[in-house]
Amino acid sequence: MTRKKIDLSSDVGESFGVWTMGNDEALMPYLTSVSIACGWHGGDPQVMRRTVALAKTHRVRVGAHPGYPDLLGFGRRPMQLSPGEARDYLLYQIGALYAFAKAERMQLQHVKLHGALYHDAAQDRSLSEALAGAIVEVDPTLILVGPPESALLSAGQAAGLRVAAEGFGDRTYNEDGSLVSRSAPGALLTDPDAVVDQVLLMVEGKVRAITGRMISITVDTVCLHGDTPGAPAIAKRLRERLALVGIKTLPLEEIFVDQVS
Amino acid sequence: MTRKKIDLSSDVGESFGVWTMGNDEALMPYLTSVSIACGWHGGDPQVMRRTVALAKTHRVRVGAHPGYPDLLGFGRRPMQLSPGEARDYLLYQIGALYAFAKAERMQLQHVKLHGALYHDAAQDRSLSEALAGAIVEVDPTLILVGPPESALLSAGQAAGLRVAAEGFGDRTYNEDGSLVSRSAPGALLTDPDAVVDQVLLMVEGKVRAITGRMISITVDTVCLHGDTPGAPAIAKRLRERLALVGIKTLPLEEIFVDQVS
Amino acid sequence: MTRKKIDLSSDVGESFGVWTMGNDEALMPYLTSVSIACGWHGGDPQVMRRTVALAKTHRVRVGAHPGYPDLLGFGRRPMQLSPGEARDYLLYQIGALYAFAKAERMQLQHVKLHGALYHDAAQDRSLSEALAGAIVEVDPTLILVGPPESALLSAGQAAGLRVAAEGFGDRTYNEDGSLVSRSAPGALLTDPDAVVDQVLLMVEGKVRAITGRMISITVDTVCLHGDTPGAPAIAKRLRERLALVGIKTLPLEEIFVDQVS
Amino acid sequence: MTRKKIDLSSDVGESFGVWTMGNDEALMPYLTSVSIACGWHGGDPQVMRRTVALAKTHRVRVGAHPGYPDLLGFGRRPMQLSPGEARDYLLYQIGALYAFAKAERMQLQHVKLHGALYHDAAQDRSLSEALAGAIVEVDPTLILVGPPESALLSAGQAAGLRVAAEGFGDRTYNEDGSLVSRSAPGALLTDPDAVVDQVLLMVEGKVRAITGRMISITVDTVCLHGDTPGAPAIAKRLRERLALVGIKTLPLEEIFVDQVS
Repeated sequence: MTRKKIDLSSDVGESFGVWTMGNDEALMPYLTSVSIACGWHGGDPQVMRRTVALAKTHRVRVGAHPGYPDLLGFGRRPMQLSPGEARDYLLYQIGALYAFAKAERMQLQHVKLHGALYHDAAQDRSLSEALAGAIVEVDPTLILVGPPESALLSAGQAAGLRVAAEGFGDRTYNEDGSLVSRSAPGALLTDPDAVVDQVLLMVEGKVRAITGRMISITVDTVCLHGDTPGAPAIAKRLRERLALVGIKTLPLEEIFVDQVS
Repeated sequence: MTRKKIDLSSDVGESFGVWTMGNDEALMPYLTSVSIACGWHGGDPQVMRRTVALAKTHRVRVGAHPGYPDLLGFGRRPMQLSPGEARDYLLYQIGALYAFAKAERMQLQHVKLHGALYHDAAQDRSLSEALAGAIVEVDPTLILVGPPESALLSAGQAAGLRVAAEGFGDRTYNEDGSLVSRSAPGALLTDPDAVVDQVLLMVEGKVRAITGRMISITVDTVCLHGDTPGAPAIAKRLRERLALVGIKTLPLEEIFVDQVS
Repeated sequence: MTRKKIDLSSDVGESFGVWTMGNDEALMPYLTSVSIACGWHGGDPQVMRRTVALAKTHRVRVGAHPGYPDLLGFGRRPMQLSPGEARDYLLYQIGALYAFAKAERMQLQHVKLHGALYHDAAQDRSLSEALAGAIVEVDPTLILVGPPESALLSAGQAAGLRVAAEGFGDRTYNEDGSLVSRSAPGALLTDPDAVVDQVLLMVEGKVRAITGRMISITVDTVCLHGDTPGAPAIAKRLRERLALVGIKTLPLEEIFVDQVS
Repeated sequence: MTRKKIDLSSDVGESFGVWTMGNDEALMPYLTSVSIACGWHGGDPQVMRRTVALAKTHRVRVGAHPGYPDLLGFGRRPMQLSPGEARDYLLYQIGALYAFAKAERMQLQHVKLHGALYHDAAQDRSLSEALAGAIVEVDPTLILVGPPESALLSAGQAAGLRVAAEGFGDRTYNEDGSLVSRSAPGALLTDPDAVVDQVLLMVEGKVRAITGRMISITVDTVCLHGDTPGAPAIAKRLRERLALVGIKTLPLEEIFVDQVS
């Protein structure tokens, strides 16, 4: 069955100090939600402020994108945290972003973990329970974004959170539904048409694994990486194509609201 | 004229990782408010969590204690930030603490700057305007704590914030009302009686400068340093003596509420 | 067969900024070598300088004690680094300490990894090869310290380094020769007599595992933890007892020199 | 009088983690010396390694480029350090780079401070004495690079160091010989011809201030900023023009050696 609505998202605000990453200004107009780095793997207070303001300008909803305390490794390296550490690190980062949302009169919509924390939580039940618990503590109306059918989303549901399954438009999949590792060949889709095709399949509940086999996948939100070459053009074309086939692009919050009513 | 009510406070939660500082557990029972480090000069997410919970146990009100981004120097070294940087650094830290207050079902009561940021803002009008503006943005009900008659408090008032003048029970004063520098001899009072005497004078609107001359000072809150040797015993005796002479010890919020009504 | 010479060592210089750890001044007189933190898990430039100078005063030899980039977790949390990352992180830290040794006219004697890096390298061959390679690159005369019969020491030997097997005087052992985890009951020996007894056994090539069973172990150097309560008194008594039974305490370098001649 | 030899240099290795800065690969072939960031304002161990190796490939001499502990502000914000802190921070960073030079079988040629530390030391005698002292401690053969006629160079000379006066090819000057502030209009020269003209003047011992007035300046080394748009093309043209007018481009070390002989 084909979805009628999808959230189009990206991880943004990952510049740090004098160093820039991605092209948030160019990408933002085509998105419906963004996940904003909170200073631990990327981002800094001034970048967070600017990114929230930029999202507001384009009526894009914002969420927190917290990661491991590893600026040097961009949060991409697994670290062995205790559940209590993970819980408090998450609270810290969500709170920090909350202040900028408040200052810009925005509300946080969701939480999406970053990098190795995203992948570790997807598989580790006690870690994901600690993280879901932290979100409930700070704001139980936040939507938890994670991989489809992951330990993370199931922990989120058990904790009473709304959860959103995420697909990646520009990353390829293994047959078991996991992402092909960044370091493996063919991990990234950079051809705009290939991305559009993959997302159009996702909307129908499937994706072609890197092996060629078609697998089932259910996603509420599709992520595009801002550092994929030509990301803004890809996003633009994707949005147009989705409109053509009658799929609405909406922030997660509105998709969930509609589902309830 | 003698005050009838005073807030008794301390800067707490300044441990970091495996390293401890102060003796928050022993000091907490004698305080009415505490200013909690937010991870930039000291403190970390787990320390913040524990400290908020500890304050809650003792019915002590909590506020944010943000500092310069200088863990190595404990925020005691002046840094030249732009007003925009200072504003966003403040928001980040207040937000981070907010999350732990929320998780522990506490409300933030105040903001007190730390170390060199406290002293720089006391004198620099454009810096203090930026900082006061940040507080208004994130929560205009927060009380801004600072040195009596400082640029900081006047910027806070201009921004519409409630402001609280702070005296130090265990630091000595110059004739102009400034603190004797930490590195100068006689900067710290470690004799419990000397601290009690100084606070009893402060409640009456005066303090004896290090030169021996009596000067005027008006304070709403008295700070005790947790790393002063014997701080818990000092705090205990102080609280008893204040009770004896009929001075109530109350959190800032309650002092202000009473003033309004 | 009983050793006639042993190195008595400790991990020192693990204070950071305003925060102190251990009691290096009190412990130093009883040691023959120390491993100095290099600022990544603990230590900072001023602590490194002071610690090298303190060692010099007591004619104690110095080595580098590098760790993971994790000040917040004191380098105790496993992180997944690539071999190239690990190699360059090691070089950076050894070089940093080299500068203070040079300034104090000392020579670096050895390298001992810290915390999770020590344990990860003990088991991971490609990690330990990268680390041994780094030491060869910066100074092939440095002695590599690690757990007896570990992948680390065997990688060190293969790279042409002198290696030293390390025993812990105040940590207990499992039957397989590994350390009882810090978080398990009975992991630390705090009774001075128990420590002395364990070291006297180690000198004879054995240790009693926590299960009670005696196992074989060969060590060139015995580490005492400075944060074990009463560490200086333990070290003092240990040194006296070793002298009584005719065991010389000497820095690693001198033990190796004697072996060769 | 016209110089016959000049060093052509740039500050390089200022990428950090996933974030890149400058275009070191393209610029390196036209330089004779480079100053490599040491991880405190920019740079990291892997960047340091790669940058030393890149310099070696192009037979470019390397020096340390240490800065304030301020990654977030790229070392551009003045910080008030004690002389002892500054001395030890310098040693730490020089030592760290030394390890990579050693690993790549290169020798450090010089030390050039970065950003606000460069400017603060240029004016502050006690700071510059502490820094010069640190260099003497770690390696008295290192050349100290700084602004012409600065407190820094004079402290370096007093400490017995060889010192090199530095001019900036792509920054404009005030009439007093100081640089026009980065935030002021006209601070940067981006027109290749303007840069070439300025350097050709510098070689003759003068520079046209932003006011239009010609002032005297004596420089041993000319710095080009790698982040100036078109920096590699500028460097290439500059080197060709210098050759045309008979000026040799040589590393500082060789200029000094020739002077002595």
